[in-house]
Amino acid sequence: MRALLIVADGMADRPIKELGWNTPLEVARKPSIDRIADTGICGIIDPISPGVPPGSDTATLSLLGYDPLKYYSGRGALEALGWGLKVGKNDVCFRCNFATVDENLTVLDRRAGRISNDDASKLAENLRKIKISHPSVEFLFQNTVQHRGALVLRGSNLSPFVGDSDPKKDRKQVLEVKPLNSSPEAKFTAKILNELTQKFNKVLKSHKVNLDRVRRGLLPANIVLFRGAGKIPEIKRLHEIYNVKTACVAVTSLIRGVCKVAGMQLLNVEGATGTPQTNYLAKAKVAIQALKDNDFVFLHVKAPDAAGHDGNPKQKVEIIERIDSMVSNILENVNLDETYVALTSDHTTSCVTREHQGDPVPVAITGPYVRKDEVKKYGERSCAKGSLGRIRGINLMPILMDLIGKSEKFGA
Amino acid sequence: MRALLIVADGMADRPIKELGWNTPLEVARKPSIDRIADTGICGIIDPISPGVPPGSDTATLSLLGYDPLKYYSGRGALEALGWGLKVGKNDVCFRCNFATVDENLTVLDRRAGRISNDDASKLAENLRKIKISHPSVEFLFQNTVQHRGALVLRGSNLSPFVGDSDPKKDRKQVLEVKPLNSSPEAKFTAKILNELTQKFNKVLKSHKVNLDRVRRGLLPANIVLFRGAGKIPEIKRLHEIYNVKTACVAVTSLIRGVCKVAGMQLLNVEGATGTPQTNYLAKAKVAIQALKDNDFVFLHVKAPDAAGHDGNPKQKVEIIERIDSMVSNILENVNLDETYVALTSDHTTSCVTREHQGDPVPVAITGPYVRKDEVKKYGERSCAKGSLGRIRGINLMPILMDLIGKSEKFGA
Repeated sequence: MRALLIVADGMADRPIKELGWNTPLEVARKPSIDRIADTGICGIIDPISPGVPPGSDTATLSLLGYDPLKYYSGRGALEALGWGLKVGKNDVCFRCNFATVDENLTVLDRRAGRISNDDASKLAENLRKIKISHPSVEFLFQNTVQHRGALVLRGSNLSPFVGDSDPKKDRKQVLEVKPLNSSPEAKFTAKILNELTQKFNKVLKSHKVNLDRVRRGLLPANIVLFRGAGKIPEIKRLHEIYNVKTACVAVTSLIRGVCKVAGMQLLNVEGATGTPQTNYLAKAKVAIQALKDNDFVFLHVKAPDAAGHDGNPKQKVEIIERIDSMVSNILENVNLDETYVALTSDHTTSCVTREHQGDPVPVAITGPYVRKDEVKKYGERSCAKGSLGRIRGINLMPILMDLIGKSEKFGA
Repeated sequence: MRALLIVADGMADRPIKELGWNTPLEVARKPSIDRIADTGICGIIDPISPGVPPGSDTATLSLLGYDPLKYYSGRGALEALGWGLKVGKNDVCFRCNFATVDENLTVLDRRAGRISNDDASKLAENLRKIKISHPSVEFLFQNTVQHRGALVLRGSNLSPFVGDSDPKKDRKQVLEVKPLNSSPEAKFTAKILNELTQKFNKVLKSHKVNLDRVRRGLLPANIVLFRGAGKIPEIKRLHEIYNVKTACVAVTSLIRGVCKVAGMQLLNVEGATGTPQTNYLAKAKVAIQALKDNDFVFLHVKAPDAAGHDGNPKQKVEIIERIDSMVSNILENVNLDETYVALTSDHTTSCVTREHQGDPVPVAITGPYVRKDEVKKYGERSCAKGSLGRIRGINLMPILMDLIGKSEKFGA
């Protein structure tokens, strides 16, 4: 027995006037997704708890069975891991942006004109040569996509309890990083970040690539902004908990980071981009292949969340219909006599508020021995009538592991 | 976006034979209450947890989002606060009764013949002049309605872990207050209460008002009974948690006390009495007005609970129908495009057992973006079929705050 968990990021929504007070899931044509509901057991999930809007990081931890209230320790480390950086358990990590500032360190563009990967790589190379004044601390800096990057601080006496230098908005001053508690470690870490901000700025503003950019009429990437300090969560890996072989099909670095911490093999998919134009069938193919030699496969699709953040319900409907074709391919190509397929969302992203919301998400599980219920269609409201009832995110993984015979009895 | 939470105290019930095995909610004519269910999302709430009968204090804490298992610290302080007494965070408070005892301190009437407010005020005045033998401790004593009152002990080394002097029944001896743990503070506090019992008794039995009462054939209020020791819960105020402006429309002192601890503005309503004859429309009017400059308004109606305690299902039905007229007025006068209206009960009060019971209570939330379900009528059993499913009391506030855009994302 195997299990495939498909998570469509931000797919759940609220009723929307322009869809006749339906949700995108309720109007999309999605016969294969509905088949999971029709042949399976349905319910609704609170990723964290009722009314609490989750991030994709906390929600994914939860759907993999880890209580984020206990184990979540910031986004920085998860994202750095997802980008392939080696992160140790005491390292403190940050998400970074190349940005453009004026002489008073007022942010002109938080994305440095969406600088190219090439330019960013050249800048990063020189930043790596900088030395921190405290020899006990080292750093790794890696640019990722366009203006984005990751910073890893390594050494003793570091703390993730520090604020951001990133003001999160243009036309604001770069922030001095402040300790968030009174520990000497937090003060020390803040000091190092403020030192790096200055030293990075000094190297960047006279860098050849930036002088070139200005000559070409482009914004110079003359500062690096830090945010989202975090360490990797101290959790047991899935194979230690359930004795299962697991794999993850995801492009989004944050999700890859969470799956890596959980001990999953990270698979790559040619043509998968995390955008609405991602190659859905290629993802299906990799997942189907992975199910041949794994007990549990986690398949993540980023696109519906972006449509929600863009406030575009019609695009969300289209994306759901493309996900349906991916699901169709999966249902046709896995042996449903020995595979459980579950479909859910990590959180509600409202096309109206354009934000993550705290409403529950639908879930359906099909497979040989589920207690099939009377729900015929997959949706926020139809699934609420299913036999699973209203469960928490952290309940899903034990349910799936129990279905595939990998749960451990508690008691005798 | 704003939210109004209407709580009808003890409105939920069990099926009753004389109502054809229906509940009062199921037989009442209540088109406006049903409209909340019909246009909204429904569910059932366990104020504390399944099967646990709540007090109105713990249930109200819970419905405001505070876990009473963590934060509840006795009724005394909440009630004293609700009566307008100034209570500091280290003060220990008690609910009090003027009572009639014989020479052996056997209680003849726990309510001193339901002594008038006037007589009680005159007696209280002289009690305030009493000095405690330990100068480190002061007390405030305030009579409230008829025989009722509140005592606040202030000083260092006090503890709320002391028993009652009130035997709760007539024909029983006044109890010696006992410490409930072995701390020196509990012993000290018990000693002070026993001293006050004696000193109050001494002043009261020779008081002119009591001599007069006896002459008129009335029972003398010759003792004060103490019960329900408590401190104010150490909780963050609602505006600190959600950044919202809040107001409370309630008469019952206990509920006002809870709302005060939560940092809400306490509004007064001309003609509101906490009885079945309360001025329901005046309450509606104050709530509607309050919604104009608050994010969240809490509207409490006491009457159905009293009908439950009196074992009077027909009166409960009538009260529900009056609450319906209040709800009608509210629904006609608030802008439902920008207001969420929720209706629930703080607990089940059974007309058969005449006690609070642990059954869940119904809840319905209407407003622009709720996932409206198929429930048409508001009731204990109809709401159990709604899309909210079965939630806990502490879940309601995060759900409402998320609907009005005041929730904070957990994670990134």
